[in-house]
Amino acid sequence: MIPRDHPRYTSLVTREHLADYARLGIVSWEGLIAHGRGEAFDYLLGEKTSESARRSAQTAAALLRTASHPVISVNGNTAALAAPLIAHLQKVSGALVEVNLFHRTPDRVRQIESLLQSAGAAVFSGEAERLLPLSHDRAFCRRDGMYAADVVLVPLEDGDRCGVLAAMGKKVIAIDLNPLSRTSNMATLTVVDEVTRALPVIADACSSLTDEECGDLVAKLDNKVFLKEARNEMKARLCHALD
Amino acid sequence: MIPRDHPRYTSLVTREHLADYARLGIVSWEGLIAHGRGEAFDYLLGEKTSESARRSAQTAAALLRTASHPVISVNGNTAALAAPLIAHLQKVSGALVEVNLFHRTPDRVRQIESLLQSAGAAVFSGEAERLLPLSHDRAFCRRDGMYAADVVLVPLEDGDRCGVLAAMGKKVIAIDLNPLSRTSNMATLTVVDEVTRALPVIADACSSLTDEECGDLVAKLDNKVFLKEARNEMKARLCHALD
Repeated sequence: MIPRDHPRYTSLVTREHLADYARLGIVSWEGLIAHGRGEAFDYLLGEKTSESARRSAQTAAALLRTASHPVISVNGNTAALAAPLIAHLQKVSGALVEVNLFHRTPDRVRQIESLLQSAGAAVFSGEAERLLPLSHDRAFCRRDGMYAADVVLVPLEDGDRCGVLAAMGKKVIAIDLNPLSRTSNMATLTVVDEVTRALPVIADACSSLTDEECGDLVAKLDNKVFLKEARNEMKARLCHALD
Repeated sequence: MIPRDHPRYTSLVTREHLADYARLGIVSWEGLIAHGRGEAFDYLLGEKTSESARRSAQTAAALLRTASHPVISVNGNTAALAAPLIAHLQKVSGALVEVNLFHRTPDRVRQIESLLQSAGAAVFSGEAERLLPLSHDRAFCRRDGMYAADVVLVPLEDGDRCGVLAAMGKKVIAIDLNPLSRTSNMATLTVVDEVTRALPVIADACSSLTDEECGDLVAKLDNKVFLKEARNEMKARLCHALD
């Protein structure tokens, strides 16, 4: 039991929460290590949503709002951390929610789909096919789901898959705490923020943006600027700590 | 099987090794996440021992050498990553080795003690009492062990416990990859380096330093300078990435 007065209470509770889901098989061992790496980058970001991250999240909402076939791709870590937030974003964005796993087993897919459904999401399920040009099980997706999407939101994605989706001509929105990662640099738009902070900002903007504002945000999109601002945030924190 | 020529060979082998120990119950799931976090900071440090880290490790040796009752506190990750290195450091420093866990169960304590013993360490065991003013199980230690220590080496420690030990008047040596952490900033001395690189440097210096050199290093100890140098290493790496 983690004491409420521990200064790292939230971070420790999140770790316990992920460990519980690892015991259930929903979060993979690699997912736990990856979460740790994300924590470190979040630490350098001050564990808060920067102004730049807020604008990139609003731009993400604009991309979802202006899409004709938006899909939210969910993996084990995202489901464990944010199932209710995914359900809410689905409601306000009208996107399909589809489970795609790196460490794919039929059992894990079923467990994660059922976790999302319990949180209120309508999961786009059915037969997955090996449709993406990738040598591992991330190649699996549904023909009428992600394969047909024009905009795909991929929280916590791996670089290979992000690159393949972008090469297929899709607009890829990544949520990634590491602004130096291959995913961050291959996505159409990267929200450099922690997933449970980013998703509500995206959802709020889906509800509040006018059509004109959506068009403006999409027209102005420059991911290199968002990534540079994120790296500057980290650098400033390190410089500040130096003084 | 990880190919020897993989650019991330060492890192991947270490992860597999930790996973094996997680399956045995020696490393906690939370410990895996903490390892991921360390990986990210080590990446920013270039995964090598800086000159500054080498000097702080030598100063750690000087503190151990000049102590009257030095104790090395070992947790699950430290035992899994470095049991033989702990055993060697014990031989050259004459310190007690005591197991202290955040996620404490009698079984885990026994497993970790037995891992250390197999590696050649003499483990200071016996009845642990709730002696430190902390609200969780890290409060447990032995009256004639850590409670009576004047110098405590705490590889991979949490901030609370580091602060409490320092407040009890002990000299606390932390090994911590995050130079911004509470542990790093509350310790008497922080070695900002990966634990399996830091421990041999400390052990070598325990053997080679003269008494006069030990006295000089202790007299000159300024942890703020070591932390600043570590942050400068990271900053340089991030600035480089920016250009």
